[in-house]
Amino acid sequence: MLSTMNFCQSYTQKEYKALARDARIKLFNLQQQCMTQKVPVIIYVDGVSGTGKGSFVNLLSEWCDVKHLKNYSFWFSFDEERLRPEAWKYWMKIPKAGEFAVFIAGMYDEPMRKLAAKEITETEFNEIMHDRVEFERTLAQSGYVIVKLWFHITADEHKKRMKARKKLNNKGEIGFSTYDEQSNENFENLNSVVGKMLPLTDKHFAPWYIIDAYDEKFRNIKAVEAISKCIENALDVKKTVVEEFPSMPDNMEALSGISVLDQVDLSLSVPKDEYEKELEKLQKDIYKLTYKAYELGISSTIVFEGYDASGKGGAIRRLTQSIDSRITQVIPISAPGSEEAAHHYLWRFWRHVPRAGFVTIYDRSWYGRVLVERVEGFASQWECKRAFSEINAFENELINKKNILIKFWLHISLDEQLRRFKEREAIEWKRHKITEEDWRNREKADQYKIAANEMFLRTNTVQAPWFIIPGENKLYARLEILRTYKRVLEERIKEIKKGKKK
Amino acid sequence: MLSTMNFCQSYTQKEYKALARDARIKLFNLQQQCMTQKVPVIIYVDGVSGTGKGSFVNLLSEWCDVKHLKNYSFWFSFDEERLRPEAWKYWMKIPKAGEFAVFIAGMYDEPMRKLAAKEITETEFNEIMHDRVEFERTLAQSGYVIVKLWFHITADEHKKRMKARKKLNNKGEIGFSTYDEQSNENFENLNSVVGKMLPLTDKHFAPWYIIDAYDEKFRNIKAVEAISKCIENALDVKKTVVEEFPSMPDNMEALSGISVLDQVDLSLSVPKDEYEKELEKLQKDIYKLTYKAYELGISSTIVFEGYDASGKGGAIRRLTQSIDSRITQVIPISAPGSEEAAHHYLWRFWRHVPRAGFVTIYDRSWYGRVLVERVEGFASQWECKRAFSEINAFENELINKKNILIKFWLHISLDEQLRRFKEREAIEWKRHKITEEDWRNREKADQYKIAANEMFLRTNTVQAPWFIIPGENKLYARLEILRTYKRVLEERIKEIKKGKKK
Repeated sequence: MLSTMNFCQSYTQKEYKALARDARIKLFNLQQQCMTQKVPVIIYVDGVSGTGKGSFVNLLSEWCDVKHLKNYSFWFSFDEERLRPEAWKYWMKIPKAGEFAVFIAGMYDEPMRKLAAKEITETEFNEIMHDRVEFERTLAQSGYVIVKLWFHITADEHKKRMKARKKLNNKGEIGFSTYDEQSNENFENLNSVVGKMLPLTDKHFAPWYIIDAYDEKFRNIKAVEAISKCIENALDVKKTVVEEFPSMPDNMEALSGISVLDQVDLSLSVPKDEYEKELEKLQKDIYKLTYKAYELGISSTIVFEGYDASGKGGAIRRLTQSIDSRITQVIPISAPGSEEAAHHYLWRFWRHVPRAGFVTIYDRSWYGRVLVERVEGFASQWECKRAFSEINAFENELINKKNILIKFWLHISLDEQLRRFKEREAIEWKRHKITEEDWRNREKADQYKIAANEMFLRTNTVQAPWFIIPGENKLYARLEILRTYKRVLEERIKEIKKGKKK
Repeated sequence: MLSTMNFCQSYTQKEYKALARDARIKLFNLQQQCMTQKVPVIIYVDGVSGTGKGSFVNLLSEWCDVKHLKNYSFWFSFDEERLRPEAWKYWMKIPKAGEFAVFIAGMYDEPMRKLAAKEITETEFNEIMHDRVEFERTLAQSGYVIVKLWFHITADEHKKRMKARKKLNNKGEIGFSTYDEQSNENFENLNSVVGKMLPLTDKHFAPWYIIDAYDEKFRNIKAVEAISKCIENALDVKKTVVEEFPSMPDNMEALSGISVLDQVDLSLSVPKDEYEKELEKLQKDIYKLTYKAYELGISSTIVFEGYDASGKGGAIRRLTQSIDSRITQVIPISAPGSEEAAHHYLWRFWRHVPRAGFVTIYDRSWYGRVLVERVEGFASQWECKRAFSEINAFENELINKKNILIKFWLHISLDEQLRRFKEREAIEWKRHKITEEDWRNREKADQYKIAANEMFLRTNTVQAPWFIIPGENKLYARLEILRTYKRVLEERIKEIKKGKKK
């Protein structure tokens, strides 16, 4: 019904000139304020073909300080993107604190096009919309301003513009994509997909603004005003507590009576000679299997967590020895650098998500959010509490129905930790590994245990399980880790091959 | 991996006695506080068969004030429920302010069972999980405490218990459902579905608590403590501002430059004799069509909104004349009654959602949330802003892939409204229809228009569109409404018949 309505307002040149001046100054000033207050802003410029998205984005670049504004269009598709989970390309483009990012026909364009062409089902479409909304929610909750503009023109106007475009296309002056062709031929169909997308993704934390795009001048003013108003609002409430109902108590271990770590059998060990024999065999097997996975495009993400001195480094070394280093990288995680700290906390982990077939090993990981950041109070209670579902969502995207994600917790007793600390202090070339911080962490061992136990229960998923490895005997732990990875590789390769045969 | 761990803690009878006394007093006192502070609490008691859900719920009833606690199990299925959208049965069971509701193996049981039995696909399962989470979010955001308990036992223990149950079943002492049978035979499969469900639905506003359910005494204490702790936390933060990032400016009409109401052609009218002829024909057609819809189980929900004196009553009368009154009801919406006000605001609309094949006509509706409640400030800004997506979600459930939902806005000019107000005041039997409130609303006409224009843009969906009816000429409006309903009925009946043939 709305699509048949005639929204065709316009400004005269004179009106425009006066309004444009004010709108431009206002926007520019707000951008400066965002920079000072370190507020990141994402602007979506969306609409069917022919609504002037491109020319509006050019105007934005002219009116803003372009040093702090980046434009992203999504009609280029790079290997680097195609070889990673879909959400990667969006995460890589989120602005850092104080910057603007403009997404031109971005996150919604492709799934809408696919639904209109019946390449995906409505249930699949709904699932994608849901993922997009969760992406926006996680950003909005951590202070990102998201302005979503939908440029609207009527069916008649669209027809007229497509005709004109086609003419120019025939002269070779502009491109006319298959998509343009489709939406031209079946505007009603496309419009009905728009009518599905908008209500599914219109949320108070990332609302759509429908802009009358009939007249270029009118559209420019209204769109800039909408952006300014959204930013203004966000700056106003910056100091408000951002809090949902935190009916989530702190100590799940005490509440549920379940302590995963208390169940670990730390007596397990293996003799040196057996170790060496099995190690060699496992490493050879893994070398071959990771190459098979490479050929099949199955990536592996392997996470190592555990107390200080639990043997993560040594275990990781045995693992990297087993994989061609051209397809592996180890990412050590400590306090974030300044660029990392200026982004959403998941951004720095998204950066290193492996390409199809590759292996990334994280020495500590995003679980820091619910371990060290929780215990030390680096993140607020509310941030830690919502982190569990953010992490589950992140891992779900990472796995992408195919990839491997394994999470190892290397476990040792506090006595063994003390022994290792002292040993390290005694050996010159190991002394640097032990710092004041390690001793401080040790004092908070109880809190770390509570945090870890809750983490296991809330993030142990079927697709990305936790493996708790008894680490008292280093040799046993290393073998167990390699055995686990080998088993998971074999199973996944089998599944994928089976799926391909069908 | 977790499922193979041995969580089998227990209490001695002596320990239990002391702990139970404290836990019971604490829970009882918290229930009293919930009543005083009008906090509604929903407790899910979930877990695979044989974990003692039933005996725990009996304990809860014993320890609480049962006058303010209601238990709901979901293995009964009533016509009244089956004939309505699925969410209806959950909405009807939400507690009112200050009360407890216990859902025993409720919202998650059926979809898990279906996925384990491969009756639904994983994508379908994900969509259901998503809907459940949104249900919980909308309740939590308006102050409901949701405690989700998952009773955990190991595979071995489960096997043992199922064996014992089967024995008792063979003796005819207890029932043993197909579900028990399935989960008995393929516990690993069921457990992997649990491992999918938990991370998808574990949210900070409605977290799961996994309870070691090996020992009855241990389970009881831990489960009651978890409930108490969640309630305590919620009572603590009751005064905290519940706010997400409100980057959503107020006046969408000004921002987008789109005013739906300014586009309405109020000059349309129809002569009396033509009106009568067409009216009779339309009414006859609708009578037949609504019966066809009844036979096909397609329900109709018809919403009327519009300014005071826009002719809603008269139009509704022409509509009810066209439908057998045994399958129709008209629900007039004014200020909520005390029971309604004690529930989530959508509850009173869910109550009257029609059964399959029936017709419910709402004279004003849930849109009051974003109209009168917004303009008069009865709802907070934050409540109004998130209402749009709550309403879209509600309507989506209501339609249920099949039903009809039509939203009429009857539009008149302010001049015409004034004329009608005066006319009403002059006629004795119409005088009661015009009150001080109508005059007050009239003064705020500008604000109502802004609110309505935003409402159209944010809630006009493909499945549930808005029809803006020019109402200056009452006869024209009535015909247009009947024509619209007739057309929608015809289309939907055709679609459903076509779908059935396939």
